[in-house]
Amino acid sequence: MTVPARDLTPEEFRRLGHAFVDWIADHRDALPGLPVVPPVAPGDVAAALTGPAAAFPGRRLPEAAQPLETLLGEIDRVVVPGSTHWQHPAFFGYFPANASMASLLGDLLSGGLGAQGMLWSTSPAATETEQVLLDGFAHALGLCAAFTVAGGGGGVVQDSASSAALVALLAALHRAAPGWRDTGVDGRERVYVTAETHSSLAKAVRVAGLGARALCVVDAVAGTQAMSPAALADAMAADVAAGLRPVLVCATVGTTGTGAVDPVRAIAPVAAAHGAWLHVDAAWAGVAGLCPELRHVIDGVDLADSFCTDAHKWLLTAFDASLLWVRDATALPAALSVTPEYLRNAASESGAVVDFRDWQVPLGRRFRALKLWAVVHALGLEGLRAHLRGHVAAAVDLAARVRAEPGVVLAAPPTLGLVCLRFTTADGDADDATTRAVLERVNASGAAFVTHTVLDQRYVIRIAVGGVATEAPHVEALWDRLRAEAAAVRGTCVPPQP
Amino acid sequence: MTVPARDLTPEEFRRLGHAFVDWIADHRDALPGLPVVPPVAPGDVAAALTGPAAAFPGRRLPEAAQPLETLLGEIDRVVVPGSTHWQHPAFFGYFPANASMASLLGDLLSGGLGAQGMLWSTSPAATETEQVLLDGFAHALGLCAAFTVAGGGGGVVQDSASSAALVALLAALHRAAPGWRDTGVDGRERVYVTAETHSSLAKAVRVAGLGARALCVVDAVAGTQAMSPAALADAMAADVAAGLRPVLVCATVGTTGTGAVDPVRAIAPVAAAHGAWLHVDAAWAGVAGLCPELRHVIDGVDLADSFCTDAHKWLLTAFDASLLWVRDATALPAALSVTPEYLRNAASESGAVVDFRDWQVPLGRRFRALKLWAVVHALGLEGLRAHLRGHVAAAVDLAARVRAEPGVVLAAPPTLGLVCLRFTTADGDADDATTRAVLERVNASGAAFVTHTVLDQRYVIRIAVGGVATEAPHVEALWDRLRAEAAAVRGTCVPPQP
Repeated sequence: MTVPARDLTPEEFRRLGHAFVDWIADHRDALPGLPVVPPVAPGDVAAALTGPAAAFPGRRLPEAAQPLETLLGEIDRVVVPGSTHWQHPAFFGYFPANASMASLLGDLLSGGLGAQGMLWSTSPAATETEQVLLDGFAHALGLCAAFTVAGGGGGVVQDSASSAALVALLAALHRAAPGWRDTGVDGRERVYVTAETHSSLAKAVRVAGLGARALCVVDAVAGTQAMSPAALADAMAADVAAGLRPVLVCATVGTTGTGAVDPVRAIAPVAAAHGAWLHVDAAWAGVAGLCPELRHVIDGVDLADSFCTDAHKWLLTAFDASLLWVRDATALPAALSVTPEYLRNAASESGAVVDFRDWQVPLGRRFRALKLWAVVHALGLEGLRAHLRGHVAAAVDLAARVRAEPGVVLAAPPTLGLVCLRFTTADGDADDATTRAVLERVNASGAAFVTHTVLDQRYVIRIAVGGVATEAPHVEALWDRLRAEAAAVRGTCVPPQP
Repeated sequence: MTVPARDLTPEEFRRLGHAFVDWIADHRDALPGLPVVPPVAPGDVAAALTGPAAAFPGRRLPEAAQPLETLLGEIDRVVVPGSTHWQHPAFFGYFPANASMASLLGDLLSGGLGAQGMLWSTSPAATETEQVLLDGFAHALGLCAAFTVAGGGGGVVQDSASSAALVALLAALHRAAPGWRDTGVDGRERVYVTAETHSSLAKAVRVAGLGARALCVVDAVAGTQAMSPAALADAMAADVAAGLRPVLVCATVGTTGTGAVDPVRAIAPVAAAHGAWLHVDAAWAGVAGLCPELRHVIDGVDLADSFCTDAHKWLLTAFDASLLWVRDATALPAALSVTPEYLRNAASESGAVVDFRDWQVPLGRRFRALKLWAVVHALGLEGLRAHLRGHVAAAVDLAARVRAEPGVVLAAPPTLGLVCLRFTTADGDADDATTRAVLERVNASGAAFVTHTVLDQRYVIRIAVGGVATEAPHVEALWDRLRAEAAAVRGTCVPPQP
């Protein structure tokens, strides 16, 4: 038997590539008819993969080569029925993860070129295209020139907002104590967040060796989930008085739980007064800054040291593409650069180029700007804005329906495409049992998927409108289903639409 | 004018997808005729992108949507001429970065499905497929059962060996002092490497807040670049006597500089005697364990706490796919888990599933197992072994030619596909000027690309044989060019082949 000790030939790739593209086109076409979350139990997928006649009998890899087209049958048999379909138009869970088909094609080019962008010299086009695109996005978001290359700052694509927060923290640690690279942390560092700040900040604090004791959870403004600048000032002053060192404040624009927006403009001078780095985590909501009428959500970010928003959530770009800007282009390399001999090169030593390996934790990096470019090319800023506006309008409409409906209330003020609601008793009290039961029934139906949070110790359904294929009718259908399931839980008739 | 406030339709994707696939097939076909490294100066690419009639005039994103097929013209005009071609068959720099066309198709499916694999419940297929494949690779590499799911350990795909080393260090810190999650590092931690250990370890130590003082550079066995177990024992004992705490030893299988292999089997009991975590970084070389006759390079890894090798270097899988195994499946979650309310779910709380977000720093994660699966499906283990063996044979042949040639010597014992050489004077001394000049001339020619290191303070050319399309004739052509350029530098005739 002949063993092909090689990759596909270009001609084989052409033929198979068309088949795989067609599979994806068919899959996206079929998605609305699939359950968003299939009924699958732990171990089901592994069992389907490892049975006697399966792909990996006994969890062993196959010895022999197989025609690649037959993989598609396995995907249909095992993977699709075992997947939560994030690209389904009725996926309203977590935050959206827009894997647009336009971005897939840009990402395919990235794989085709197969460049490593760790140094400028290892692929000049990868680095400079990323810089130009991030400058372009900075302008389109209305960020001040300080965040652009020409302004002495710059943007970089990270894999996730988690990693962006981590490198911001590392830059902050270095700025706060330049001896950090040699002697590490000293146990006096403090990082300021709120109870609603994303868990990636707690993780970054742990990864950076500070321990949970370094995390100061600042109170919210009464009756909201937004950080209180006054409480922040008090906390920082008390810490300084206790001999601790404020290193970083994380302000969130659009918290994961409820979409709360910390008052960045008021927080900035408090952070600055203590020399702390101000990082703005706008992972989900920041892209709304592309629309002038929504730009208020990122008010004040021009005062931050770093600002992050994810193109891979609501901005049509397949994971991973978290956009991070810093005001000082030297800050990340100062904290992160380590240069062994085998990475030395004339371009780096000239000082005329940026080596993005020094802006992130991993050394290797993919040419991620291509998928961003494909999205921008295919939709233009006008298309991106229309995408965002369509979801905001659908969420505004949903919130209006909630307000008009008896027995259900908004659990927090809606932000952009995020609507949080809970069901209530006849007395108007939160009815956790009904809220939870409705969520479980909606999700078990397969017709839609929503997730939850807990706010003021009460169960809340989060509805994140923003899927790459989600349009107003899908939101309307979700609303109808929520009402129907609530009626079923309560044993009542579905009330007429107001 | 109509603004498409939307992604491509499936039908548009089908048509454009075929065109993009064809572009890649044509590009891979054309690669051998392109310069490996094009002559491009800092700013050239940005200038081509931002001129008046370019894609981003004045570094502004376009307002209007454009037909996506026209992006390909821009890639041809700006990106290809500005790229270092890592997939070129004459790319011998750094380590290979095999973006096989088979893996591209698996990765395309991953984008098409667009699943987030952060929790088991957010895409059961993503998690279980990854577990099954990593179990299969563990068996194929001859790893002991302790690294498999059934054995209480398990594998996970990281973005890079850098990140794998970082999470191994975090697990080690937690194991060494469970209070670490709360109180952070205490300045007494020590991490053991050699002068040839990858720079990602120094970076991980910095990221984790330990500072460079925590890094102990252990001496090599005399005349080699491999860690001396005796020197390690001495260093650890001295540190313990000084009140310091050994946390992690990193043994390297195949250093970046010269491919040196630390004696893992002898190092393991030394690390164990002090309770230190043993991490084996076999980023490039570890995949050779798939071939029984090469498996000696990973001898002893069964004694390690964690073992990492990159499928995205020499194993035909497009970046990123760094395979990490740990002996204790609870170690990474114990160190890394942070669970806010919005990530709670019944499956996680049942304890019956693995949530891979707790095995890495970022929260989000792509369905990376699909590209690994596509590679395994298309080539089988037989094909993978043949791929590796072809490169090893070509490197053995190259090394024999170097040994037989006057005026050039092997700078270190060849390892697998890596050959290090330097040119010598008539007296047999290292001739750094010639070695450097030959490298520069080879790279400037565009016909091949090699990189360098410094060993014993002398300049060394590294030739990493392992490209996805690299075959013996490409290595032979490189050798001819090296000889020709050396003759040109020396002003002599090219000597006849021995």
